[in-house]
Amino acid sequence: MAKPITIDLNCDMGEGFGAWKMGNDAALMPLISSANIACGFHAGDAKTMLETVQLALKYDVAIGAHPALPDLQGFGRRSMLLPAEEVYSLVLYQIGALRAIAEAEGGTLHHVKPHGALYNMAAQNQALAEAIAKAAAKSDLVLYGLSGSALEHAAKLYDLRFCGEAFCDRRYQKNGALVSRDLPEAVIEDPAQAARQALQIVQNQPIETIEGELLEVSCQTLCIHGDAPHALAIAQAVRQSLQAEGFRIAAV
Amino acid sequence: MAKPITIDLNCDMGEGFGAWKMGNDAALMPLISSANIACGFHAGDAKTMLETVQLALKYDVAIGAHPALPDLQGFGRRSMLLPAEEVYSLVLYQIGALRAIAEAEGGTLHHVKPHGALYNMAAQNQALAEAIAKAAAKSDLVLYGLSGSALEHAAKLYDLRFCGEAFCDRRYQKNGALVSRDLPEAVIEDPAQAARQALQIVQNQPIETIEGELLEVSCQTLCIHGDAPHALAIAQAVRQSLQAEGFRIAAV
Amino acid sequence: MAKPITIDLNCDMGEGFGAWKMGNDAALMPLISSANIACGFHAGDAKTMLETVQLALKYDVAIGAHPALPDLQGFGRRSMLLPAEEVYSLVLYQIGALRAIAEAEGGTLHHVKPHGALYNMAAQNQALAEAIAKAAAKSDLVLYGLSGSALEHAAKLYDLRFCGEAFCDRRYQKNGALVSRDLPEAVIEDPAQAARQALQIVQNQPIETIEGELLEVSCQTLCIHGDAPHALAIAQAVRQSLQAEGFRIAAV
Amino acid sequence: MAKPITIDLNCDMGEGFGAWKMGNDAALMPLISSANIACGFHAGDAKTMLETVQLALKYDVAIGAHPALPDLQGFGRRSMLLPAEEVYSLVLYQIGALRAIAEAEGGTLHHVKPHGALYNMAAQNQALAEAIAKAAAKSDLVLYGLSGSALEHAAKLYDLRFCGEAFCDRRYQKNGALVSRDLPEAVIEDPAQAARQALQIVQNQPIETIEGELLEVSCQTLCIHGDAPHALAIAQAVRQSLQAEGFRIAAV
Repeated sequence: MAKPITIDLNCDMGEGFGAWKMGNDAALMPLISSANIACGFHAGDAKTMLETVQLALKYDVAIGAHPALPDLQGFGRRSMLLPAEEVYSLVLYQIGALRAIAEAEGGTLHHVKPHGALYNMAAQNQALAEAIAKAAAKSDLVLYGLSGSALEHAAKLYDLRFCGEAFCDRRYQKNGALVSRDLPEAVIEDPAQAARQALQIVQNQPIETIEGELLEVSCQTLCIHGDAPHALAIAQAVRQSLQAEGFRIAAV
Repeated sequence: MAKPITIDLNCDMGEGFGAWKMGNDAALMPLISSANIACGFHAGDAKTMLETVQLALKYDVAIGAHPALPDLQGFGRRSMLLPAEEVYSLVLYQIGALRAIAEAEGGTLHHVKPHGALYNMAAQNQALAEAIAKAAAKSDLVLYGLSGSALEHAAKLYDLRFCGEAFCDRRYQKNGALVSRDLPEAVIEDPAQAARQALQIVQNQPIETIEGELLEVSCQTLCIHGDAPHALAIAQAVRQSLQAEGFRIAAV
Repeated sequence: MAKPITIDLNCDMGEGFGAWKMGNDAALMPLISSANIACGFHAGDAKTMLETVQLALKYDVAIGAHPALPDLQGFGRRSMLLPAEEVYSLVLYQIGALRAIAEAEGGTLHHVKPHGALYNMAAQNQALAEAIAKAAAKSDLVLYGLSGSALEHAAKLYDLRFCGEAFCDRRYQKNGALVSRDLPEAVIEDPAQAARQALQIVQNQPIETIEGELLEVSCQTLCIHGDAPHALAIAQAVRQSLQAEGFRIAAV
Repeated sequence: MAKPITIDLNCDMGEGFGAWKMGNDAALMPLISSANIACGFHAGDAKTMLETVQLALKYDVAIGAHPALPDLQGFGRRSMLLPAEEVYSLVLYQIGALRAIAEAEGGTLHHVKPHGALYNMAAQNQALAEAIAKAAAKSDLVLYGLSGSALEHAAKLYDLRFCGEAFCDRRYQKNGALVSRDLPEAVIEDPAQAARQALQIVQNQPIETIEGELLEVSCQTLCIHGDAPHALAIAQAVRQSLQAEGFRIAAV
């Protein structure tokens, strides 16, 4: 009998701040295999980080740092012009902050995935991508990022393990880019449709783009957006479909 | 010939923030043996931390975390009522942030010394002291704090190495407490006088309190305030006096 | 026919921050007569303030500033030791920020009510109370605060109109203080019970304290906590009961 | 005898934050006619604003708001992608905060000049320029900005008084743009040379650009950078030269 193929499900977690809540971490954590935990720059204070680490450990989910630009009010989604060495030091800072908390709780830090505007900037800007890859390399972590992006290229330069990401709850353009969130078709809200796209991606079948053409997307990890209204239903549908088809859900 | 007695000189470092400078780190670093580096909560951003770590490594100075309450505008000097578990997590956070930067630069993290209001609160409040000691223990660091304080007691509970601190540039009251900064006599500005007090402390001779009585103060580390106007002259005088008397200046 | 007696219903509003939401402002605004709008220090960024002002204007609700200690992560609920002149300037700052937004939208600023820890500190500490009253006086605003508190006393010194506040959704102790939120009986969750307590207060009938004794509480404004789970049901029940008894709900 | 021509000297002021100082406000204030006071987003807390307002009132200097992007760590110098309505509300917020403090001290708010990255963005991006002009119009203030920029154009749309700015301590390119701060020739450090350029500008004589060509620059206000090392000597030389040539130094 063939060994089951492994696929990772990752989700951004711990994105509350102080008195404010976001997402349904308690319900989502049992369904995923990698948690990208906010590190205080776009969301997540030290206490929230500690509680999210405890939740991840409870369900044996791989703990990753989710560093961002210093922009709480903008939730790290606004591009900021930062020099690469500034990005290097602030990614190190956030990785270290979460690692100390994870290790104090008996866990280990597994990966790092940049957040929001930093994720998008690192997908295109080689200097920023290298700054992030260097911080990941110094910290000996797997790097998660957009498949085929500048970040993947930077990971190679630093001889890092890279985990390419695709999206089951977002529509793609025929050039491989995501449809902008400003457009109504950007997000897949139907759990069944998200599960179908997830299966197509992991089975190396083409998905249908917004233009109606077919596109092949490859990945080692599938992202589920925890702050979407149907996040829980999507996560359940995706997980069930993947398992029904014999996939094993686990971090790399 | 007798082995020289070792005494540590520590100084708060890296207390600029963004465009703002504080203290004269470049001149002071060669004169001290332990640097307590601000970790972003009262001062010090990630880039400043990186540069301060590099400076400490250049002069072989022990690198310590200097965690504080989350209060940039108040420079961490304003008491805030925080639950002990919140303090535990934010101290872990700050320790980890600095550790990642120090280790990325090839250094190691040596100690932790709470800053400002957190230092004072931890000297008196047993629950907060234990929260800090627990974070230091989880991070396997030497803990610096006021000799004979609640923090020293908490260090014992966690079986931690504690490094008791005394001050060469501050006047004491006969009960062993420092004279409040609100009083004009609080600070010793004359380098010769600071050097004399430093020698008295490390030679286990009594110092003269503000009331004119004699007080014995013991310590393993002497603090020099880097943001004081005469910080450099005081550090030079203290270092020279200690060395002239045969002391070896080094971290524990 | 007797002129109806007027009672004010006030509620804290605009307490989201950036991507984070709090409370159900859209549903509550039509039910109240005074909105205390967060000014950016414990919650509320400039855009949230603008939207909350627009909502208040839509329902002809009196616009008030809700200044707080500078503590986003703690939601302004953690006591901080600040000198009175610092409090004076930060209350002015927050009042001015909201006033500019309110006036740009064609509204006027009506009152100021300190938030959280600042509210509690101002109820007991005369120097802080006077700092807040001075800022309110310089800004020519009605001051809302706890009936019989140091803040009411300070308002008299500055010849300010003071609007004493009582709570329909909180239990009292026999000494007139609120039951601490740490205790399970602190909050009244039953809308009918909250409406009953509201009526007793405005009709100058004694309410039952947690000890079972009777207490007379007087006020000119009743506070409804917008972030409580049953806030909407409570606001509806209180409003309906007051109107059924012939009270007119309006700001002073 | 001819009436003396009036020229305004403006300087950014109050750019410390908490324990951190910047510039020499006390020495510069008597030499200028317009103070652009930081409003807490890139620098300047409420207490610093109050003290800076008091200093401006002492020397009868026009008080202006100096709003910035929300970026303390970057001193408001890092471009951030913000929607225009966000900029509108945060400029209103900062104007109002300073106005309340100025009026509480018996002063009036006179003008608004955007800071750093916001200044540069508003010089080129019409939507942002209009957002700032709208906030200035709603607040009934004179708008200071780069002569001939998108901000000047936006001021016309809102029928605002605009005060065009030129620089006596910065070199120009032949296209009228400032030489980038990344180049060594960007800043004029010699007081005599700055005074010469100031005179040329206000006397409508061409200045020499970095390429060696001549350029005519017109303005109603000259900016002096208060945080430059030679700020004080430059301000003294410029002021003295202008007065020696019969100019009257005053705000519009």
